[in-house]
Amino acid sequence: MADLFELDVFQAYATYATVVILKMMLMGPLTAYFRMTRGAFSNEEDVRGKSEEQKKKLLRSHPDVERVRRCHQNDLENIIPFVIIGLLYSLTAPDISTALIYFRVFAASRICHTLAYILPLPQPSRALAWMTGMVVTFCMAFRVLTVALHL
Amino acid sequence: MADLFELDVFQAYATYATVVILKMMLMGPLTAYFRMTRGAFSNEEDVRGKSEEQKKKLLRSHPDVERVRRCHQNDLENIIPFVIIGLLYSLTAPDISTALIYFRVFAASRICHTLAYILPLPQPSRALAWMTGMVVTFCMAFRVLTVALHL
Amino acid sequence: MADLFELDVFQAYATYATVVILKMMLMGPLTAYFRMTRGAFSNEEDVRGKSEEQKKKLLRSHPDVERVRRCHQNDLENIIPFVIIGLLYSLTAPDISTALIYFRVFAASRICHTLAYILPLPQPSRALAWMTGMVVTFCMAFRVLTVALHL
Repeated sequence: MADLFELDVFQAYATYATVVILKMMLMGPLTAYFRMTRGAFSNEEDVRGKSEEQKKKLLRSHPDVERVRRCHQNDLENIIPFVIIGLLYSLTAPDISTALIYFRVFAASRICHTLAYILPLPQPSRALAWMTGMVVTFCMAFRVLTVALHL
Repeated sequence: MADLFELDVFQAYATYATVVILKMMLMGPLTAYFRMTRGAFSNEEDVRGKSEEQKKKLLRSHPDVERVRRCHQNDLENIIPFVIIGLLYSLTAPDISTALIYFRVFAASRICHTLAYILPLPQPSRALAWMTGMVVTFCMAFRVLTVALHL
Repeated sequence: MADLFELDVFQAYATYATVVILKMMLMGPLTAYFRMTRGAFSNEEDVRGKSEEQKKKLLRSHPDVERVRRCHQNDLENIIPFVIIGLLYSLTAPDISTALIYFRVFAASRICHTLAYILPLPQPSRALAWMTGMVVTFCMAFRVLTVALHL
């Protein structure tokens, strides 16, 4: 069954799916980094061994941490649908050149979205990056429904 | 490998998986719509070009926005497990009529859940819709484990 | 196409993917249980039929509920990437013994993570469990990229 990987489209899909998921996973360590540098924790056990007064100061939310978490949440809401719809799409035997355009545009849009969210860049850069990614996923979903429709 | 799509069960799976994921993705634009009509934003850059006083008023949370976000979160927590377990399930060569019942009940339960959450409808409509979807996913997971168990 | 399930690696993948997703899904009912025993709800319609004064008391957040929700969120952020990368990984025809080590370590790390979060256990138990799971997913992603790279 490793012959799925003999298909160009499936190779491309696996590459871009892995890249965008790795990008999404990097938001976890980034949140941890901001929590530690900004001193903003959620759990009592994360600040043990400090004085009571310091604990109260450290158990808070911080704008930078919340920003990374919103970015991570947006990744979950957009990258996972892309990866699942993309898997079905790449099994519909699409044209490799069209597929590569979809995958590349989506990966680029999510990297732009993350930069626009974290730096942050002025709007509408973030909104445009978000919408570009959504449009790609909708296009792939349209093809899946065209090929597979069985209600 | 496009021959996966020659299987009735896989066609049905692809159709319903795409439908529920599109439903989930629509919560994103719906959140944006509520943010704009209710005037409730999270990011400084989303309200640039306003006076300082107006900014403070717009950077807030609003019950309607929070409601859509909770609904979206519930979708992530339930639709993604369905889609992944459903993929494995549809590869176990199940009966097409059973599979169609599972997929249809799940899709219907999630559409009811969204309506019950957003309108909102009185409880226990939302709770029942949520539980129906979970039971479907558990049934499919049971079959996957019966066929595949290899610890 | 059910012949995917004739592969040892795919059987093992299906088993562990189902197990960790079921674990993740159990956080939903656990949240509901804490909401009811702690009396902490988010939606007006969840507390209908109570007096106005009681409603105000019940529509609040509670530390135990928030803890379970953070644990659930962390599951979404880590288990779903594992399941998707793991699917691609198990299609690269890896050694069954290596694959079983990865799958078992990941499943164990997430069960430890949940226990460390909910009980809670003193740090760094939770941090170590989280990092162990991430390392497994990164190792599998590395193999997928080695086999499939097609940019």
